[in-house]
Amino acid sequence: MASTIIDSAIFQGIFSSDAMRQVWSDENRTQKYLDIEAALAKVQGRLGLIPQEAADEIVSHCRLDQIDMVKLRAQTERIGYPILGVVSQLNALCRDKLGEYCHWGATTQDITDTATVLQIREALALVDADLAAISDALAALARTHRLTPMIGRSNLQQAIPVTFGYKMAGLLSAIERHRTRLNELRPRVLVGELAGAAGTLASLATGAMATQAGLCAELGLAQPDIAWHTIRDNIAEVGCFLGLVGGTLGKLSMDVKLMMQTEVGEVFEPYAHGRGSSSTMPQKRNPISSCYIHAQISVVRQHAAALLDAMVADHERSTGPWQIEWIVLPEAFCLLAGALKQSRHVLEGLEVDAQRMRENIDLTGGLVMSEAVMMGLGPYIGRETAHDLVYDICREAVKQKRPLLELLCEHPEINTHLDRAALARLCDPAHYLGQSGVMVDRVLDKLR
Amino acid sequence: MASTIIDSAIFQGIFSSDAMRQVWSDENRTQKYLDIEAALAKVQGRLGLIPQEAADEIVSHCRLDQIDMVKLRAQTERIGYPILGVVSQLNALCRDKLGEYCHWGATTQDITDTATVLQIREALALVDADLAAISDALAALARTHRLTPMIGRSNLQQAIPVTFGYKMAGLLSAIERHRTRLNELRPRVLVGELAGAAGTLASLATGAMATQAGLCAELGLAQPDIAWHTIRDNIAEVGCFLGLVGGTLGKLSMDVKLMMQTEVGEVFEPYAHGRGSSSTMPQKRNPISSCYIHAQISVVRQHAAALLDAMVADHERSTGPWQIEWIVLPEAFCLLAGALKQSRHVLEGLEVDAQRMRENIDLTGGLVMSEAVMMGLGPYIGRETAHDLVYDICREAVKQKRPLLELLCEHPEINTHLDRAALARLCDPAHYLGQSGVMVDRVLDKLR
Amino acid sequence: MASTIIDSAIFQGIFSSDAMRQVWSDENRTQKYLDIEAALAKVQGRLGLIPQEAADEIVSHCRLDQIDMVKLRAQTERIGYPILGVVSQLNALCRDKLGEYCHWGATTQDITDTATVLQIREALALVDADLAAISDALAALARTHRLTPMIGRSNLQQAIPVTFGYKMAGLLSAIERHRTRLNELRPRVLVGELAGAAGTLASLATGAMATQAGLCAELGLAQPDIAWHTIRDNIAEVGCFLGLVGGTLGKLSMDVKLMMQTEVGEVFEPYAHGRGSSSTMPQKRNPISSCYIHAQISVVRQHAAALLDAMVADHERSTGPWQIEWIVLPEAFCLLAGALKQSRHVLEGLEVDAQRMRENIDLTGGLVMSEAVMMGLGPYIGRETAHDLVYDICREAVKQKRPLLELLCEHPEINTHLDRAALARLCDPAHYLGQSGVMVDRVLDKLR
Amino acid sequence: MASTIIDSAIFQGIFSSDAMRQVWSDENRTQKYLDIEAALAKVQGRLGLIPQEAADEIVSHCRLDQIDMVKLRAQTERIGYPILGVVSQLNALCRDKLGEYCHWGATTQDITDTATVLQIREALALVDADLAAISDALAALARTHRLTPMIGRSNLQQAIPVTFGYKMAGLLSAIERHRTRLNELRPRVLVGELAGAAGTLASLATGAMATQAGLCAELGLAQPDIAWHTIRDNIAEVGCFLGLVGGTLGKLSMDVKLMMQTEVGEVFEPYAHGRGSSSTMPQKRNPISSCYIHAQISVVRQHAAALLDAMVADHERSTGPWQIEWIVLPEAFCLLAGALKQSRHVLEGLEVDAQRMRENIDLTGGLVMSEAVMMGLGPYIGRETAHDLVYDICREAVKQKRPLLELLCEHPEINTHLDRAALARLCDPAHYLGQSGVMVDRVLDKLR
Repeated sequence: MASTIIDSAIFQGIFSSDAMRQVWSDENRTQKYLDIEAALAKVQGRLGLIPQEAADEIVSHCRLDQIDMVKLRAQTERIGYPILGVVSQLNALCRDKLGEYCHWGATTQDITDTATVLQIREALALVDADLAAISDALAALARTHRLTPMIGRSNLQQAIPVTFGYKMAGLLSAIERHRTRLNELRPRVLVGELAGAAGTLASLATGAMATQAGLCAELGLAQPDIAWHTIRDNIAEVGCFLGLVGGTLGKLSMDVKLMMQTEVGEVFEPYAHGRGSSSTMPQKRNPISSCYIHAQISVVRQHAAALLDAMVADHERSTGPWQIEWIVLPEAFCLLAGALKQSRHVLEGLEVDAQRMRENIDLTGGLVMSEAVMMGLGPYIGRETAHDLVYDICREAVKQKRPLLELLCEHPEINTHLDRAALARLCDPAHYLGQSGVMVDRVLDKLR
Repeated sequence: MASTIIDSAIFQGIFSSDAMRQVWSDENRTQKYLDIEAALAKVQGRLGLIPQEAADEIVSHCRLDQIDMVKLRAQTERIGYPILGVVSQLNALCRDKLGEYCHWGATTQDITDTATVLQIREALALVDADLAAISDALAALARTHRLTPMIGRSNLQQAIPVTFGYKMAGLLSAIERHRTRLNELRPRVLVGELAGAAGTLASLATGAMATQAGLCAELGLAQPDIAWHTIRDNIAEVGCFLGLVGGTLGKLSMDVKLMMQTEVGEVFEPYAHGRGSSSTMPQKRNPISSCYIHAQISVVRQHAAALLDAMVADHERSTGPWQIEWIVLPEAFCLLAGALKQSRHVLEGLEVDAQRMRENIDLTGGLVMSEAVMMGLGPYIGRETAHDLVYDICREAVKQKRPLLELLCEHPEINTHLDRAALARLCDPAHYLGQSGVMVDRVLDKLR
Repeated sequence: MASTIIDSAIFQGIFSSDAMRQVWSDENRTQKYLDIEAALAKVQGRLGLIPQEAADEIVSHCRLDQIDMVKLRAQTERIGYPILGVVSQLNALCRDKLGEYCHWGATTQDITDTATVLQIREALALVDADLAAISDALAALARTHRLTPMIGRSNLQQAIPVTFGYKMAGLLSAIERHRTRLNELRPRVLVGELAGAAGTLASLATGAMATQAGLCAELGLAQPDIAWHTIRDNIAEVGCFLGLVGGTLGKLSMDVKLMMQTEVGEVFEPYAHGRGSSSTMPQKRNPISSCYIHAQISVVRQHAAALLDAMVADHERSTGPWQIEWIVLPEAFCLLAGALKQSRHVLEGLEVDAQRMRENIDLTGGLVMSEAVMMGLGPYIGRETAHDLVYDICREAVKQKRPLLELLCEHPEINTHLDRAALARLCDPAHYLGQSGVMVDRVLDKLR
Repeated sequence: MASTIIDSAIFQGIFSSDAMRQVWSDENRTQKYLDIEAALAKVQGRLGLIPQEAADEIVSHCRLDQIDMVKLRAQTERIGYPILGVVSQLNALCRDKLGEYCHWGATTQDITDTATVLQIREALALVDADLAAISDALAALARTHRLTPMIGRSNLQQAIPVTFGYKMAGLLSAIERHRTRLNELRPRVLVGELAGAAGTLASLATGAMATQAGLCAELGLAQPDIAWHTIRDNIAEVGCFLGLVGGTLGKLSMDVKLMMQTEVGEVFEPYAHGRGSSSTMPQKRNPISSCYIHAQISVVRQHAAALLDAMVADHERSTGPWQIEWIVLPEAFCLLAGALKQSRHVLEGLEVDAQRMRENIDLTGGLVMSEAVMMGLGPYIGRETAHDLVYDICREAVKQKRPLLELLCEHPEINTHLDRAALARLCDPAHYLGQSGVMVDRVLDKLR
């Protein structure tokens, strides 16, 4: 029985991904505890801090199937934390009291934090893979539609033409920066924790730093310079990163939603039978994925704020702030995974209606080309005169509900300089795409 | 396999309550769908809008055990919403195509919203019960410790004495206001939804408002004046209410944490073997419940912001904002339920060390009584003289590390007016509790 | 020199209102301090707690023009709070050391909190007035356009017709609930504070409660049951209320933005020369006010979360949480005032293009009427047959890009039952408005 | 008249810094507009896109003292944006209509965004300088108190000893990471914008990319690959960065507040006459700066969430999301500047009471040394026996309220192995500091 939408048997596939949910599952988290206890024993055995025999025995039991999860819940509720329960179960599994050497010198938070980092490593790999796929999809769309004209919109008003490839390249530029950010934060975040009750590792009279170094090496993590039990900029930075990625996906979903409007109809989320359609309203084509993205990232950004709150930790081991991370970090990753999955789905199967894009440019009867016309007329009649003249003709066009081109062709001050063909060319959006293609190229050129 | 801490097999008992998790479970939500479809059929049968035979047949199948949840997940992922899946399963369960009359005139969101309201009703009842229990516990503590002196603290500095009962009564006053708020918001929130595709109930050519009225009556909900598919102040208000309750619990947990400090030691969360203790640090008595409360309500307040975001809905059925509620509302309730449970645990078993409270007042050697001494000397030597004299003596007391009383007794300007007994009385915190008792009474008198 | 957009000499008129800025100005806040000190002196003089002569002298100086604001800044930066500076200036203004009786028994936070409540009272009156005006404007639009057909949209897809009045009435229902909420929270919030250093009023050996009662009465505030220095649900509730109002304005602005799209063009923010137009793009009509509303309320909702955070106060006088309110409360009110002002501007001058609304219904060639046609045909050929038949014809209409009505008229299974006139009637949105008018009436009927 | 606490004539020096407020002032922002228009004219003159004469004339007027700010407010309120107002004023200032060449090819948002980036550059320089100063102060404290013992606290319970230098080094490690983050984000953020109405720079028929490159070079900014009018990860990243820095300052202030408690008294904010003291409570030493830091960063983290919200921009020029930045970015910087300033003040003048730290370790009569004693006895009587024995003796010590050392010395199983001197050594916190010094060195070694 699940209560959250993320774990819901009905909704989990929509709001998250199986792979990401697995990362943050009870099973994986508990396995990480075991991996760390095993690595610790291994290192300490090697260093001669605990008997090799104990190390071997402990390692041999660090398997999830040896843990009684029901008992672990009871232990956790009694103690407030699961680590002692795991250790005591491990202890009981080991022969000859060799389990006493388990968890040697470590504190609850050492294991929990390091497990979290291992989970973050797996989770970031999933995010990275999705970012790469989204980058590919965006790059393909940018390339294909490098010069596919569509209307650019400012304040939700038709402005001047752009290209659909330009629109995709803008998003692509952000995705690429996110990948850079991810690479930059990894060394700060993928750092182990082994520091003892108050961070000083006093619990290990000898071999403290060697154990710490060895454990981190064993787990493929960097060694910390100092304990970070209550120095949480690393975790909060991850939250901010998820929020930033979410922001870009939110922009994507916003544009898709708007372009899918009945009155616009320029792109469509990939069609799947029954998806986003209505049994009584055959005209509908709902942007289902975009809906979910919008919602998921709205929550992720609040989670980022909560993780910033979790930084306000007290003293050497905090009294509440740490637990904020327990709640928020898995959810932020799971929801972002959902948003990434839905975004991939949208982008990898996006239907682009270039014809409708072209038609929409004409909706205003050519008014969106007025800037182009002003500029084109400038050399003949002066820039300012051109501006005022065209502006007046535009108002007239609106009033008469006739195409701008017609009025231009009829106007004596204009048709003495330019014939219908020349004027039609000025009114052709394909000739007013500016640097759309160049900008697409600049973004594509930077792809790895 | 659960990924969220709320649904975690290990942590669910800490971060939420079984009863609240049940309310937001897949099972309960789906049963609510069925309850509503049954009520709708019943009402429409009664009104003659659908055949009575169909109504009876539909009602007979509206049982959770008839629904294939695995199939429902698949349907939901395909369509994006579970309602159509439920209806199509119901339809298939009914004989003679009578199931066609199921969901008559309703739209997906009608059923979902109304189900959510039914869940909110159950969830608010749980919150209400916890608030009542917390109110009782606080009232008992306020009564018992109406005149138990402890130091009042301002800016985390010892200021002047208060009583522990006064401290509890302050919290109680907030809890009582929350109960009032809950009563006030119920009529706004416990309102049904049946409005059809765009809210106008055009789908019911006849009997529309009668069906709506009947359905709401059947479910014990108020009838809406107008569709609220995209008018969500009701839901957001619930989120704000949860945030407000959380804020008060946060204040409680903050004070308990601070009073449990080793250096303070005035109150303790109830003792349970192993809970909050350390195997190597026997001096520790961790405020485990307060930790969790702090974390839970930190997230709930961000959820409140997310629900405010969900209000920015577009047109008649929103494109994303609605789904924010799906994520946030269950979690906010589940986390608050955890915080309420932990708070009850703390308050119903709180250990109060009145002796230590009294000792802490003396920590400064009587300096915290300086205000009282100034006031007590005023009538004899003038208020201002009293102030300056006592202030100087206080500095001297700090310098000499001697009790204020001793220096007062020795001072010729003072001991001519007041003897040691009189001065000791001025320095007795029990005589400087101000209106603590009166304020406790004022709060208790208002209890229902 | 202002740094915030709210106080910006350039932007203040856009992002807030003059009246609301005045409420939260240094001048008004400081005057409130003086009003409270005056009221306190007056009450204590009347009660004989301080000499009447002192009371009169103090009251005579409680005028803003007697306060040296430059000096006050210096005092505030030195001490951390302005109250002591105000009191010491007052003191110095009074003859014969009578100023010593100023601030008698009060603490800094008593004056600050009470001043804040007085400011909140003024600010809520402004909010209330704007809500009333918005309610009037919405009611007028709802009445005028009770039966003005427009397309209802679900998931940004055209669904079935509604009326513009219905759309306005939905917003109106929320505004009316906000007015109710405002009335409900006032008695909780408009409460004075006079409680001394730790809330017990021990600073007043006699006449403590009488002074408190008298001060509150003098200021027209309710008397608190107990000190609320660190019990802040009242202030946070105000923040939530502002967030909730903001949410509704956000929904309004969202719909206006969407309806103003070039491709939709159904309503327009009131025209003002130059406002929202472009010098080179004459086709643009930017939803300027809606832009600002969107931004303002986005920040207000995060402010609500910050005020919930401020509830987590420590002990009797908090160490940081209180100051959150100082930052957030004025801004939340100022930004909401901006959003209310912009919303009034939009609603009181809204241009409604009923013609374009009607045309947009036809954009799909009648497909949005398919639900109506299915229902209308049901009695003749059976509901299910009707559904399947119409659904097929709709697909055909999309394929052929012909109006639905034409295909219906041509279809032998249909035209044997209904002639073109009857079918045209089924396809007429004016006949498929459902309970739009009834719902408008239900909302209007509840207006005070 | 200011309404926000940031611009308040009374509070501005507490809640922000003069330098940061100057960066975000109307004056500086408007001057930036002028700088950009000047640079644009200069570049376009050089490229031959506009007459050199026009460029010179425009440049000569791009001075703040030539702008009528009152008129600009009126223009801004009418149009909704200030840029057109500035341009039209510039235009009017230029002789012979040469001003017509001003703002050539640019759009409002180009100038606004680029101005914001220039302001961010200045603001980040201020943040960087404060971080450097804080780093220095922390490093000095870490060095000085490398081995100053104090009790480490976990869950606000005394745990085992650490050193004050260790505590400072932890914070230092985070500050250094923030400096790295700042360096990493600069190239992403310090990027100019010149893209025209929809981002394609179609407004410049020739020389578009050369103008963009030239403008950016002129301003010392990087050239963008593509327009970022609605691709806002750069701005949101700045907000997240501010939130992260704030989180660390919040942790600092939390620890200072807790250590300044009357019952703890280990460190003190620097003393300044009157600051944080009370006229009637001479024992108080309020953590004034820590209060403000707590509040400031609480709001900054909500601002980070608001900036993430601003990323959800629509199409080529957004309808509201952009304006969120206008509100939030200046405030987030101003509040963080306040927090940085207060933090510097605290750290540069921090009073450390090493004596009191030492005494507090003894508060539990040696119980906090039990872990050390267990470990020290292990080699003689076996680890597990040692654990159980010491644990029992600890409980006895609590019961008898006697020092642990006394009971250890008396115990026959123990005193046969270790004499009082040896046991005293085990109980000496200076011998149980673990890797405190090593960790301090590791952090210090990495300083640039």
